[in-house]
Amino acid sequence: MTFPAPLTGVVPPVCTPLTPDREVDVPSLLRLVDHLLDGGVDALFVLGSSSEAAYLRDVQRRLVVEAVTGHVGGQVPVLAGAIDMATPRVLDHVAAVTAAGADAVVVTAPFYARTHPAEIARHFQLVAAASTVPVIAYDIPVAVHTKLPVDVVLDLAADEVLAGLKDSSGDLAAFRAVVTGARGIPGFSVLTGSELLVDAALALGADGSVPGLANVDPHGYVRLDRLCRAGDWERARDEQDRLCALFGLVGVGDPARMGGGSSALGAFKAALHLRGVIDCPATAEPQVPLSPEEVEQVGKFLAGAGLL
Amino acid sequence: MTFPAPLTGVVPPVCTPLTPDREVDVPSLLRLVDHLLDGGVDALFVLGSSSEAAYLRDVQRRLVVEAVTGHVGGQVPVLAGAIDMATPRVLDHVAAVTAAGADAVVVTAPFYARTHPAEIARHFQLVAAASTVPVIAYDIPVAVHTKLPVDVVLDLAADEVLAGLKDSSGDLAAFRAVVTGARGIPGFSVLTGSELLVDAALALGADGSVPGLANVDPHGYVRLDRLCRAGDWERARDEQDRLCALFGLVGVGDPARMGGGSSALGAFKAALHLRGVIDCPATAEPQVPLSPEEVEQVGKFLAGAGLL
Amino acid sequence: MTFPAPLTGVVPPVCTPLTPDREVDVPSLLRLVDHLLDGGVDALFVLGSSSEAAYLRDVQRRLVVEAVTGHVGGQVPVLAGAIDMATPRVLDHVAAVTAAGADAVVVTAPFYARTHPAEIARHFQLVAAASTVPVIAYDIPVAVHTKLPVDVVLDLAADEVLAGLKDSSGDLAAFRAVVTGARGIPGFSVLTGSELLVDAALALGADGSVPGLANVDPHGYVRLDRLCRAGDWERARDEQDRLCALFGLVGVGDPARMGGGSSALGAFKAALHLRGVIDCPATAEPQVPLSPEEVEQVGKFLAGAGLL
Amino acid sequence: MTFPAPLTGVVPPVCTPLTPDREVDVPSLLRLVDHLLDGGVDALFVLGSSSEAAYLRDVQRRLVVEAVTGHVGGQVPVLAGAIDMATPRVLDHVAAVTAAGADAVVVTAPFYARTHPAEIARHFQLVAAASTVPVIAYDIPVAVHTKLPVDVVLDLAADEVLAGLKDSSGDLAAFRAVVTGARGIPGFSVLTGSELLVDAALALGADGSVPGLANVDPHGYVRLDRLCRAGDWERARDEQDRLCALFGLVGVGDPARMGGGSSALGAFKAALHLRGVIDCPATAEPQVPLSPEEVEQVGKFLAGAGLL
Repeated sequence: MTFPAPLTGVVPPVCTPLTPDREVDVPSLLRLVDHLLDGGVDALFVLGSSSEAAYLRDVQRRLVVEAVTGHVGGQVPVLAGAIDMATPRVLDHVAAVTAAGADAVVVTAPFYARTHPAEIARHFQLVAAASTVPVIAYDIPVAVHTKLPVDVVLDLAADEVLAGLKDSSGDLAAFRAVVTGARGIPGFSVLTGSELLVDAALALGADGSVPGLANVDPHGYVRLDRLCRAGDWERARDEQDRLCALFGLVGVGDPARMGGGSSALGAFKAALHLRGVIDCPATAEPQVPLSPEEVEQVGKFLAGAGLL
Repeated sequence: MTFPAPLTGVVPPVCTPLTPDREVDVPSLLRLVDHLLDGGVDALFVLGSSSEAAYLRDVQRRLVVEAVTGHVGGQVPVLAGAIDMATPRVLDHVAAVTAAGADAVVVTAPFYARTHPAEIARHFQLVAAASTVPVIAYDIPVAVHTKLPVDVVLDLAADEVLAGLKDSSGDLAAFRAVVTGARGIPGFSVLTGSELLVDAALALGADGSVPGLANVDPHGYVRLDRLCRAGDWERARDEQDRLCALFGLVGVGDPARMGGGSSALGAFKAALHLRGVIDCPATAEPQVPLSPEEVEQVGKFLAGAGLL
Repeated sequence: MTFPAPLTGVVPPVCTPLTPDREVDVPSLLRLVDHLLDGGVDALFVLGSSSEAAYLRDVQRRLVVEAVTGHVGGQVPVLAGAIDMATPRVLDHVAAVTAAGADAVVVTAPFYARTHPAEIARHFQLVAAASTVPVIAYDIPVAVHTKLPVDVVLDLAADEVLAGLKDSSGDLAAFRAVVTGARGIPGFSVLTGSELLVDAALALGADGSVPGLANVDPHGYVRLDRLCRAGDWERARDEQDRLCALFGLVGVGDPARMGGGSSALGAFKAALHLRGVIDCPATAEPQVPLSPEEVEQVGKFLAGAGLL
Repeated sequence: MTFPAPLTGVVPPVCTPLTPDREVDVPSLLRLVDHLLDGGVDALFVLGSSSEAAYLRDVQRRLVVEAVTGHVGGQVPVLAGAIDMATPRVLDHVAAVTAAGADAVVVTAPFYARTHPAEIARHFQLVAAASTVPVIAYDIPVAVHTKLPVDVVLDLAADEVLAGLKDSSGDLAAFRAVVTGARGIPGFSVLTGSELLVDAALALGADGSVPGLANVDPHGYVRLDRLCRAGDWERARDEQDRLCALFGLVGVGDPARMGGGSSALGAFKAALHLRGVIDCPATAEPQVPLSPEEVEQVGKFLAGAGLL
């Protein structure tokens, strides 16, 4: 399919349901995709951080992309993460996910090795030169420990190296600078990954959102997106408030027992399980599973948001 | 071969020579191995950070291990890194490098995803359970953005999950706590990755060192190790001083043009090229190459250390 | 005067003009105050970070508060920072600034010593117990290297320990959580310190803003505030866009020659000097002064924003 | 007195005993000084981090310096911290502590405001120009969030701006670079603040140590220093090992209840109280006090080290 330029609307980063023995649960994955499409989302992003891409073996990554692109059949674009430490390894993932049918690739700055803006720019240039599909930059300092500099992003956008930005930095002021700077670059997509600030991001001109929480409540994020587009900021704020309250579920895991990732991904999957979308809430190793009491808390957040 | 318990002496993390088009240069790699063995090193560590493991494709990683283990033929143990983001992906690397002949695997804490001591411990437990060879923990906060907690390391050592620690944290006080705590755990290897503090680490009881700079001057690090073992601390300090001065070559790269990794790895490879060990000083993409003037500086460091 | 509960509108953190020999330039300070009042600001905040409080001697701090409160004569509230490392020293500043006429004090988390949420809470409790005026928490992680936890702020608000929050964290999602959580706490003031996100902060329910850039263009920030209050979000965005472009002046200083603080504060003062408000653009020692070329750049930003 | 150049040996950062209502307990302070002198220490450092300088009011700081210098009467040099955020405020402290009799001042990089190497250098130049006594740089990144660059320290040493360095960075490799670089600068004192690495620091050429734990066991640190100076590295290591075990007392405080500073300073004072040196173990506000069980743990550490 022709990739939209810009890509707009709600683009959930699709969770990867696993079986109890940690294989990809394809039937659950496809039910999740249907749940999202039913919610009205505008595209799908597989193999992102919320998809546990950092944990999935290569063979599992390939299976996810093939299953989703095959199932979606071009109804909406499918973006796929190509998450790895540096350019040569990323290029292999780009080749794999595009062979498996991805319509665009999502790529972070190099990590593990210390890096530099010049190296980040060269990384994206090499990836774009080798990719047959558009390249979206993925700004996620909490994972890669580098913030993509605004001027690097805008230069690469102007040079048509990058087709868009997915911003999970939490730095809305820097995000705004990209939105403003990209006004003169037709077709460049500026997407926020901040579940809690979608209304604010759209108000300042973002094209769309990539909210992990949209796995749990795609209908809510689509409503929010449409209200913002209609300029109905008051009702948008109410919808965003409801989603902010729901987002509290990411904190159910006891920080003495597990990290923030285990808690958040465990809560997303517990919610999908409680809502009947996926068969098993298991997260990948070595993440710590939620306790029954913590899962019960997830249920209360769902109930509070009118989702149970 | 039977893996030494503890592993002692000098264990260089072997650089990965590349051709101008960024393929593994096997003949240069084997010359480098011979250069290191000629220096008297006690073991080899391939696919570590100094080996540019973060950049090497899987097929390249496998080629490196096969080439080195085949060439070494059991003269010294060969440790191989299994560097990736989380347990399932690491397990695939462990299987690959042991199939290719590695005598031990070297594994970091999970990275990219946020992590927690309980998750780090479980990660090493799962890796050790699946590995047919000893597992060495690799503490490298500059890359993975977590410091391995002393108590986690010592608990895993006592439980025979870990066979050793390679410490590149720069935190000699925490390293000392592991050395002291491991006294009662026979066979556990405590190795420092700090090129500039090998004498100090051995003085406080470390078993050995994993100095990247030993690629350039293996004879020097072996001399240093033997002087320390002999308790000749004064001559050891002189040798360490010479190596500290030589280590200055890692800073030749202009920080306005490149990151610290490009500078350090570029300098190691430039030095090996100038010394006639490898055919081409290229580093992996997207690292920035040293300029001719910067390479000239590397030459001056070599001359200053009596190596040219 | 009775301190407003909540405090709303524009509350500029007032720069501290200095003479060439780094004494407080009281006539310039009072002209700056008049310039701000002429812009229609709702309150003044002296001895904040933009006021170079970290640099001012105690005698200079006192002089600033006395001069400003004496000049303002109750027309608008005057908030004063009591910025120091830990509780006992902060208490001395609180006593000094309230004796000098401040209507409220603005206090950060402890810094220099490592701290803990329980210690931060106790710090604010002790300060509030000793203060005769309302206490506003100042969340500025870039300076104190701790983010005030949302739940700590809300608990202290509910207990009437804190009268408000000045948020300079750049974390709009956490700010939103305070705004939402404070809805049931009448009179609690939630103020953003992010010059680039005032429209977004007001849209999600903030009471007001504390923008350093309002020193340079108070009229612009007051217009922006009034447009937001009127719900005219489109024109508000245009005004915010103009101010975002103007804010670019903080980056004129060469990062090879000076830190970000020298550049930003130097640019604010250069702009005030170019606009004829203050006599001398000097910043406190050991900050590096802007070069003539950098000052010229400041002038271009002013011209671009229609201020020259 | 003439300040030694270089200053060598053990220079404890003197704790500041407080009364239950948090006033300086001068009799206890003088008993602590006698306890240290009895241990054979070579100088005293008041108003450092271990002295809770960040918490002490100006009037308390002055009292400490006057009491200690008056009591010591020139038997050993007394260094005094002049800890504050930026140059003008530091200059006031320098004037105050030298008026109160300090033989040298100890000064950190600026903090709170973001800083730059050029600003750090200028800061020390201005302080030295105004000081009538030698200036020692205090490298404590955990408190000021900047590491003093090696080249800045060595340039300032060569220019006779700095008379020495007190290194609490924990980065022994960088410390070694200063020691080596300072070999050609006669009289410059390089002192380590790392309690756990005194033997290592002295072995690589440091002039002395500034161990907080020497409050608790000055005799041990003096023994360690003398053994190192005598080249008796084996017995030195045994003594250091004993002190490392004792240092475990800093971790008695429950991290769920308090920060690391509360735990460490609380433990030092509890130990001094248990040893009968000071009357009251109170720490300054807002630090959290140790529980009786935690104090009991301190006692066990003392017993284990043969100090009870």
